[in-house]
Amino acid sequence: MTRVLSRNPSTGTERELNVNETTPDEVLRLCDRAASVALEHAGRPLSWRSELLRTMAHELENDAGNLVTLALEETALGQPRLEGELRRTAFQLRFFGDVVDDGAFLLASIDHARDSPMGPLPDLRRMRVPLGPVGVFGSSNFPFAFSVPGGDTASALAAGCPVIIKAHPAHPATSQACFDALVRGAQKGGAPEGLLGLVFGFEAGVALIDAPALKAVGFTGSVPAGRALWSRANARPTPIPFFGELGSANPLVVTSAAAKERGPEIGAGFAGSMTLGAGQFCTKPGLLFIPQDANGDALVTSLVEALNELTTMTMLTADIADHFRSGSVTIAGVDDNSHLVGDGPNGGTSVGPQLFEVPAAVFSDPSSRALREECFGPLAIVIRYLNRDDLSKALASADAALTFSVFTSNNDDDAAWLVELGHTKAGRVIANGFPTGVGVSWSMQHGGPWPATTNSSATSVGASGVDRWLRPVTYQGVPEELLPEALRDANPLAVPQRVDGVRR
Amino acid sequence: MTRVLSRNPSTGTERELNVNETTPDEVLRLCDRAASVALEHAGRPLSWRSELLRTMAHELENDAGNLVTLALEETALGQPRLEGELRRTAFQLRFFGDVVDDGAFLLASIDHARDSPMGPLPDLRRMRVPLGPVGVFGSSNFPFAFSVPGGDTASALAAGCPVIIKAHPAHPATSQACFDALVRGAQKGGAPEGLLGLVFGFEAGVALIDAPALKAVGFTGSVPAGRALWSRANARPTPIPFFGELGSANPLVVTSAAAKERGPEIGAGFAGSMTLGAGQFCTKPGLLFIPQDANGDALVTSLVEALNELTTMTMLTADIADHFRSGSVTIAGVDDNSHLVGDGPNGGTSVGPQLFEVPAAVFSDPSSRALREECFGPLAIVIRYLNRDDLSKALASADAALTFSVFTSNNDDDAAWLVELGHTKAGRVIANGFPTGVGVSWSMQHGGPWPATTNSSATSVGASGVDRWLRPVTYQGVPEELLPEALRDANPLAVPQRVDGVRR
Repeated sequence: MTRVLSRNPSTGTERELNVNETTPDEVLRLCDRAASVALEHAGRPLSWRSELLRTMAHELENDAGNLVTLALEETALGQPRLEGELRRTAFQLRFFGDVVDDGAFLLASIDHARDSPMGPLPDLRRMRVPLGPVGVFGSSNFPFAFSVPGGDTASALAAGCPVIIKAHPAHPATSQACFDALVRGAQKGGAPEGLLGLVFGFEAGVALIDAPALKAVGFTGSVPAGRALWSRANARPTPIPFFGELGSANPLVVTSAAAKERGPEIGAGFAGSMTLGAGQFCTKPGLLFIPQDANGDALVTSLVEALNELTTMTMLTADIADHFRSGSVTIAGVDDNSHLVGDGPNGGTSVGPQLFEVPAAVFSDPSSRALREECFGPLAIVIRYLNRDDLSKALASADAALTFSVFTSNNDDDAAWLVELGHTKAGRVIANGFPTGVGVSWSMQHGGPWPATTNSSATSVGASGVDRWLRPVTYQGVPEELLPEALRDANPLAVPQRVDGVRR
Repeated sequence: MTRVLSRNPSTGTERELNVNETTPDEVLRLCDRAASVALEHAGRPLSWRSELLRTMAHELENDAGNLVTLALEETALGQPRLEGELRRTAFQLRFFGDVVDDGAFLLASIDHARDSPMGPLPDLRRMRVPLGPVGVFGSSNFPFAFSVPGGDTASALAAGCPVIIKAHPAHPATSQACFDALVRGAQKGGAPEGLLGLVFGFEAGVALIDAPALKAVGFTGSVPAGRALWSRANARPTPIPFFGELGSANPLVVTSAAAKERGPEIGAGFAGSMTLGAGQFCTKPGLLFIPQDANGDALVTSLVEALNELTTMTMLTADIADHFRSGSVTIAGVDDNSHLVGDGPNGGTSVGPQLFEVPAAVFSDPSSRALREECFGPLAIVIRYLNRDDLSKALASADAALTFSVFTSNNDDDAAWLVELGHTKAGRVIANGFPTGVGVSWSMQHGGPWPATTNSSATSVGASGVDRWLRPVTYQGVPEELLPEALRDANPLAVPQRVDGVRR
């Protein structure tokens, strides 16, 4: 038995929790138990399901003081941020309750029997049903919103799936306490036992991917870990979908007109965005494209000044900080590269912000691969472009990303083509704003083309997050009384239905 | 240069077409050309896009006589079937025109800026955009409906994607003529040149999967070929989604009550369904579960009689017929297995129907794997069950499938649990009907859990087929004039929008 350790990144101290790493056998047992209650959970009324999510939100809030204290010790993310994140997480659970109540996620469609140019068509009724037990891998950088009680868990429960969660080793005590709150909510709601499971440890994570009862995986984390697990999910005897949100370098372009209009303001704002949460956001803007002129220079000056005013930051774990420092060294090694801000602390979890500057031609050179990859932490690359053509070539060489931001002025000739280009390279295109901050709403998309995520059609934030955990089933000629309620003519659940092709 | 050969499966004769197998370089060129016009196609008005699909349907119909003649020579599927399939294919193109006009497939959603419990939220607008060039692998068994002008091509064009099609070697002349009709439609519609491409040959198919410009693949075909290409799509430097519709054994259950009520009628109907198109349907019912009693015996007697009345059938190719015969031999080798109908012709493309019978316990034995796999062609396994428990265990051992059919009587105690079980094992649950015949409609689902398809959330028939070729993009704070029209407040396209969470 290996005890789970909780580490304080600020002090370096660690303590043993009263919980063991989960054995592969225990993981299998949890998954099988979840599978055994999957149909029962899926079959409960939608109104019960939405209320369950709200009860869980309530239980999280009831334990807010304790949860924030634990997260503060384990993540060093700061009290205001953690309190806000917990509020967001509770809001997210309630929001998915609204998504359940709305019912459109079922995509209920009824085609009555009819003649067609193909001959007679039978009665056909289609809706989406839950996949079954889902595995959720919590992130390091969001102990609440993308971890145990986060968007993957909330959306999977909303879709009607049991959830087995792999706690991130950066915050096991927080994970356990959050899980306990969710379980209290489940018990108060009268959920079937086994709807939720929590596992700890690297081996448990691998066993979870391999568990025959598991039907899909949600993951938020690094590119190497995510790709390894994605490959493993594909290598199963029965492969399962793996929704990995892996992060990206997130280009941010400032047009000539915008730099002229408000370069220093943008520079100061950028400093705040790239260092928010010690730069530990998958939406951190890591690539700043600005003109090679005096306005661009003023922007850089403002950015450098703002970064130099910042104090040392504490990263989530020593491993993450080490990785950040080695990433900085690799980037510094690229030729024709100016190190504008750097020389942070050299050990432990403490780091300082890092800023590099290269000409656009250097950025797009094949040998500059390191510049184009995400470096998790408070680091950004300034790319100076000479003209539109130079910018266009540099952007073409950038990887696809979660976000693509554009700062423009009024009647800006560069606005239209940049917005159009942005939508081909990212899941979210932002005008005159910073990409950090991913609001939970109906219209949010958090996920972009490979390598940002493993599945560009999916989102891990917002109402459409439920899509990942559903698959469609058509009932043909099935008598009314044997149909799911959402597909009955009388529509007892009052869900949106498309009937004979017409949206209702 | 290798000339493409067209073979007549009825006569065994072959002729050289005036076209070469496509070189990998040519494949790359076609994909790059498609990529260069992708944004232009995607940016055309929806009304133009739907009209293009209708023009293509018209061109197919205009050439119907020639197309059916070519397909008759290359497939031996018979004139009525081929005429019907071409009608269906033209209908399908028009149907996807309707899907485009409907506009709901865009999933347009607008959230105006507002305050929330998370703090202020920016203006967020989300819709789905086309992925870019899509590869389509035509099937052997549907020279029209699942080949060059079939559902994958129609849905990809409807989604706004260029399409490069790999012709199936079983019907190259039909493929070329269909392609020519689509191109005539594209030219009449004024589509950008390069919107469509056609490639021939095994190497060209592999090069298509590998082409950097390709963004997704639609495939209809065998499990081994589909899995190999799926793995290859995943192994690309930038993996792409591979939507493989690979076929399945398609269980069909007759309850005790239904067997008692109308066993012989069901048996005769089953004979027709399993031999339709020489059994060359991915929805062919391959597994027939019936009670081990006198009513079940009567059903089997009727089925055997109906099969014995059938004449020899011609399969699509000699390879497919050889594979069918070797599959039959493997199945015959399973212990405790009665060969009820068999001894068909032994060479060439001619085959006779094959029927086997085993007790349920034999079916679910681990050693009987061969019984549970699809055997493409006019072959089925009758599984005799003693009681509900015996049936339940046998069904549990069956693979997931495209379809799951149940024949019941009124007030049948077995109806409810079988329909519920069916929805966990298949993409389409059919009551009192045969699974062959997949209507094009809003509510069709053609795709089930692995191993039936590579992606259980996708369908290759019906309106939702467009979903495969789209990904969502959110526009944040983007000024009205730079937004796609579908996301503007004025809604100039009159597409369905969700506005601030409310469906419009």
